[in-house]
Amino acid sequence: MFLRKSPTPTFSKAVVAMAAIVVALAPTLAHAEEVEYLTQSNGNILWTLVAAILVMFMQAGFGCVEAGFTRAKSAGNIMMKNFLDFAVGSVVFFLFGFAVMFGLDAGGFIGTSGYALSGVSAADLPWSYTFWFFQSVFAATAATIVSGGMAERTKFSSYILVSIVITAIIYPMSGHWAWGSLWLGDDGAGWLEGLGFCDFAGSSVVHSLGGWIALAGALVLGPRIGKYTEDGKANAIPGHNIPLAGLGVFILWFGWFGFNPGSTTTADDTIGLIAMNTSLAAAGGVLGAMFISWFRYGKPDISMTMNGALAGLVGITAGCATVSPSGAIAIGLVAGCLVVLSIEFIDKVLKIDDPVGASSVHGVCGAWGTLACGLFNLDGGLFYGGGFAQLGVQLIGVGVFFVWGFGTGYILMSVVKGLFGLRVTKEEELKGLDIAEHGSESYNGFQLFSNE
Amino acid sequence: MFLRKSPTPTFSKAVVAMAAIVVALAPTLAHAEEVEYLTQSNGNILWTLVAAILVMFMQAGFGCVEAGFTRAKSAGNIMMKNFLDFAVGSVVFFLFGFAVMFGLDAGGFIGTSGYALSGVSAADLPWSYTFWFFQSVFAATAATIVSGGMAERTKFSSYILVSIVITAIIYPMSGHWAWGSLWLGDDGAGWLEGLGFCDFAGSSVVHSLGGWIALAGALVLGPRIGKYTEDGKANAIPGHNIPLAGLGVFILWFGWFGFNPGSTTTADDTIGLIAMNTSLAAAGGVLGAMFISWFRYGKPDISMTMNGALAGLVGITAGCATVSPSGAIAIGLVAGCLVVLSIEFIDKVLKIDDPVGASSVHGVCGAWGTLACGLFNLDGGLFYGGGFAQLGVQLIGVGVFFVWGFGTGYILMSVVKGLFGLRVTKEEELKGLDIAEHGSESYNGFQLFSNE
Amino acid sequence: MFLRKSPTPTFSKAVVAMAAIVVALAPTLAHAEEVEYLTQSNGNILWTLVAAILVMFMQAGFGCVEAGFTRAKSAGNIMMKNFLDFAVGSVVFFLFGFAVMFGLDAGGFIGTSGYALSGVSAADLPWSYTFWFFQSVFAATAATIVSGGMAERTKFSSYILVSIVITAIIYPMSGHWAWGSLWLGDDGAGWLEGLGFCDFAGSSVVHSLGGWIALAGALVLGPRIGKYTEDGKANAIPGHNIPLAGLGVFILWFGWFGFNPGSTTTADDTIGLIAMNTSLAAAGGVLGAMFISWFRYGKPDISMTMNGALAGLVGITAGCATVSPSGAIAIGLVAGCLVVLSIEFIDKVLKIDDPVGASSVHGVCGAWGTLACGLFNLDGGLFYGGGFAQLGVQLIGVGVFFVWGFGTGYILMSVVKGLFGLRVTKEEELKGLDIAEHGSESYNGFQLFSNE
Repeated sequence: MFLRKSPTPTFSKAVVAMAAIVVALAPTLAHAEEVEYLTQSNGNILWTLVAAILVMFMQAGFGCVEAGFTRAKSAGNIMMKNFLDFAVGSVVFFLFGFAVMFGLDAGGFIGTSGYALSGVSAADLPWSYTFWFFQSVFAATAATIVSGGMAERTKFSSYILVSIVITAIIYPMSGHWAWGSLWLGDDGAGWLEGLGFCDFAGSSVVHSLGGWIALAGALVLGPRIGKYTEDGKANAIPGHNIPLAGLGVFILWFGWFGFNPGSTTTADDTIGLIAMNTSLAAAGGVLGAMFISWFRYGKPDISMTMNGALAGLVGITAGCATVSPSGAIAIGLVAGCLVVLSIEFIDKVLKIDDPVGASSVHGVCGAWGTLACGLFNLDGGLFYGGGFAQLGVQLIGVGVFFVWGFGTGYILMSVVKGLFGLRVTKEEELKGLDIAEHGSESYNGFQLFSNE
Repeated sequence: MFLRKSPTPTFSKAVVAMAAIVVALAPTLAHAEEVEYLTQSNGNILWTLVAAILVMFMQAGFGCVEAGFTRAKSAGNIMMKNFLDFAVGSVVFFLFGFAVMFGLDAGGFIGTSGYALSGVSAADLPWSYTFWFFQSVFAATAATIVSGGMAERTKFSSYILVSIVITAIIYPMSGHWAWGSLWLGDDGAGWLEGLGFCDFAGSSVVHSLGGWIALAGALVLGPRIGKYTEDGKANAIPGHNIPLAGLGVFILWFGWFGFNPGSTTTADDTIGLIAMNTSLAAAGGVLGAMFISWFRYGKPDISMTMNGALAGLVGITAGCATVSPSGAIAIGLVAGCLVVLSIEFIDKVLKIDDPVGASSVHGVCGAWGTLACGLFNLDGGLFYGGGFAQLGVQLIGVGVFFVWGFGTGYILMSVVKGLFGLRVTKEEELKGLDIAEHGSESYNGFQLFSNE
Repeated sequence: MFLRKSPTPTFSKAVVAMAAIVVALAPTLAHAEEVEYLTQSNGNILWTLVAAILVMFMQAGFGCVEAGFTRAKSAGNIMMKNFLDFAVGSVVFFLFGFAVMFGLDAGGFIGTSGYALSGVSAADLPWSYTFWFFQSVFAATAATIVSGGMAERTKFSSYILVSIVITAIIYPMSGHWAWGSLWLGDDGAGWLEGLGFCDFAGSSVVHSLGGWIALAGALVLGPRIGKYTEDGKANAIPGHNIPLAGLGVFILWFGWFGFNPGSTTTADDTIGLIAMNTSLAAAGGVLGAMFISWFRYGKPDISMTMNGALAGLVGITAGCATVSPSGAIAIGLVAGCLVVLSIEFIDKVLKIDDPVGASSVHGVCGAWGTLACGLFNLDGGLFYGGGFAQLGVQLIGVGVFFVWGFGTGYILMSVVKGLFGLRVTKEEELKGLDIAEHGSESYNGFQLFSNE
């Protein structure tokens, strides 16, 4: 009974050749001709692919968090938006967005090659496929963040347009500025990279951007019916399924271990520190949010604590590879406090109705995480004797992503609103988007309170 | 303080020997004696194991999808069937099924060695353990597909028999025809392999087979009470938990990145393309199903869109390693349209009650995916100048799996029905299988509408 | 268009040097200078990190299982405890627990170095970060087990103290005895290791310990209101969301493939057997619990079957690397039977109210799994001709972990009870912990039966 050895990859020919030489030189090396080694390039593909798969799963997390933190009558609609974001995002990013983000640079502002991965040499294709997949799940993440801020009142057909424009242009353009060189090296480098901007895994590139677009969307849409009383007081509209939201947060947390350590796109020995920092920052975020909500409301708030975990994770995303574990705890603690204060501020002072706190979690904490590189980076951070140079660059980046994200988001939402309408009718909103937009209910058989 | 290095594997002795020689020849190579490399065979084990773990998790996805798309009163029963399928499947496949599928071939039709992995040499055991685990989760997947089509009315004790026969005989026998050589090479090859049949990760071997058995099961069982009116009109029986179903679809999608890229069972550089194709086909499936349901029903249907993702994934499973990314999008789009039309056809024309659409998602789209290899394969596909040869072989395979799956499924179900009864009593069905079959409820504390 | 190669890790310099020499010796080896290989140490980091990520996700599984098996009115509180356990656990284990468990040994009883990973050389940091992360998710697992046994009546603020003490002292101290050498080798070895105690992945170190502390907690707390009638009969208090619990079990099962195979912390060729054993034992656990509950209650019980899967997994954790696949099935079958009998015994005879059966699943089945090494180990097990020596050592270990876990747990709970109170008021318990402790509800919009 002879076992088929599992097939050996292309590179192994070189290995066999090398082994053969060594064997020829040293006949005493008994079994060496049988041994082949895994090439570093295949190891990188393996690791990057596993990480990408984890990030892909974050879509499930977003779906659960956003559905759980909103009302039962629109839960299926939120899930639909997550499916749509990923589907539209993948196809649009394949045809267009990837080239804008990573193609040959034009003036530091935009990439110009690689539409549908055209023009890639056969030797470079295996890595390019893998890298594309990794980057496509990042693009879909940015788009999905937006759906949370616009929950429970956005017209589904208009939302499709929003999602297309984000993945085709808004996300890849600013992404090019900060990450353009990741595929083609210097030939693809964007202008923010030239300044030495630090955003290892995307506190700004992915999270802030998504959060600021979500804020613009929530602003242009206006609040849900019943969110504010006539004299301007904010009513809480509690989520319908907290265990589902909690599961969603854990899924996101899990996926973040692909998001951050995977951003090495290399199976090297730095991924351990990145994972450790990610874990400790999430812990800090939980503790920060729990204790500050306890202090402010008298009880440790469940949804704030859950958002605290996400806040810590968003916060460490920029600096996960460049700060120490102690720094990671501090970044997470601050993010956890910030998210509670920011949710209150946006809800009660700005009076913008962001149902799941997307702009606070991703926008504000993403900005914090980006700044934190200028404070906590072991090499160049203010707290480690690096002066203000890095911090200055980080501030520029934070400003750029706010202006670009909120600005283009506001224009996009306003144009779509003017052309097609962005919001469902009052009747549809009261009925819930599941019935109104999709003709079905999410919880058949359960007796629900009618909530108008 | 001396760190214990993490233990080095067996093969590393050869590495050390080789490094020693190189060092002897070149004293200038300072630290080389410390460096060991990961062998390709251990890399293959690592990758195959990670992929198998992802596929194992698909059981959770099936549980959530099937429970979410059916009624609350039988949700626990569906979960039980998923636990049972995996448990029975693992043990039976260990003792029997694996040998039938991958053992020494007899006449191209059946494997005949390797019961409980007996007779494997010590050197081959590490790979065989890994390969067994990878294949066992595939076998459990095929069995679990069936439970969806038979939901809400099947007798639990009879279902156990069905599950045993599928994993012991039906699945491994046809699996042998198409994949027999994967363990023992030519010594294990089945007859369909000899024809050049293309089914890289199992559109036919796993999905069509499961789907056709599900169809036979649904037919032999008859429809649920209330599914069809006296004049033959189909009533919709909507699912009870759409967010749970949506989460389940995302879990399956996630697991599919083990299913397809993992089917290389090698840590080589082809897994990136396979993952990219898998992702784009799922996206195509979502878009196809969403738009065709929108066109036909006036609104984008949630459960159809969710099934569209699965349809795209099933569709790309056969050709994921052999088609281009553009081809993958096309395959997914067609699968997404097909699944909507097929669900309608089986429900309204054939009047077979398949509660979750298992026969359409897995049977029909699995057949489509198998055919699609004959159309889209870069090497041999009709659309790429390859003529009709490959398409012809694929057609034979599609026919074979339909006849085998539906045929043996029909016989199995009929025999179990005749001997022990396949269906619960009318009273039990109305009460729901949770109470009737297991003496408990799934949602204690929630007020449910009584639905008889 | 030049592709940036993904960055190469530090070790690759040595590889390049070695390749250069080979090339110099053999000019015919055309492209060898381009090929680099993945070092074993980076492969170990990759595998250990992936496994740690899977184990981290078990927190989601615990959250779902514990929430699903208890009542809706405290579901958010249970989730909060899982977030808290992981957050507090990570930070405390970083600052303190890791050093106690793996630092320089003092007398076999306690580790004394490595607080906040201080004193680790730069060369050892990459592995230490990875190893820390892997161990931190194990510590959090032990803590989380406890929350299940104390569900629905524990004061949240007091629970925080409990969680801190477990991860700072109780878990790491006994962990040191059995696993102390895993980081620093002989310099860190604990006294149980010296005896040859076998607990590869933690049936005792993690699971029994957590289970026995849970038992102590449930005992000190007393039963939930309404659990026992005045004449001492046990009432069943069924869980509120069985599909959620089922999903949680699948998530735990999935994560266990990081827990057990990952405990090699090496990308070697033994991980396949460990995964196979883990899978078969879980299957055995499902079958054992299903059939014994069927036999005893007349119907296959859903929650017992689900606990049976966990029982099988806990049972195989100690011996997963040292028993055969057939042995794994046997260990799982026994664990599945044991868990049903133990849950009954603790509930009806001891009259201790453990809402999710944590002490049976983790305590009793962990003890069984530890003993099973003495019976089924291929090298040294009684059933394989190894005599009673190993079994004796295992018995000592089982006793030690019971005395230490239950003893320190009982003291800890009693002290916290005396100082701050361990239990909420009667009114708070009736209202449910979500409202009483956190001021929110988990299922807004759903009509629930009021359950006092």
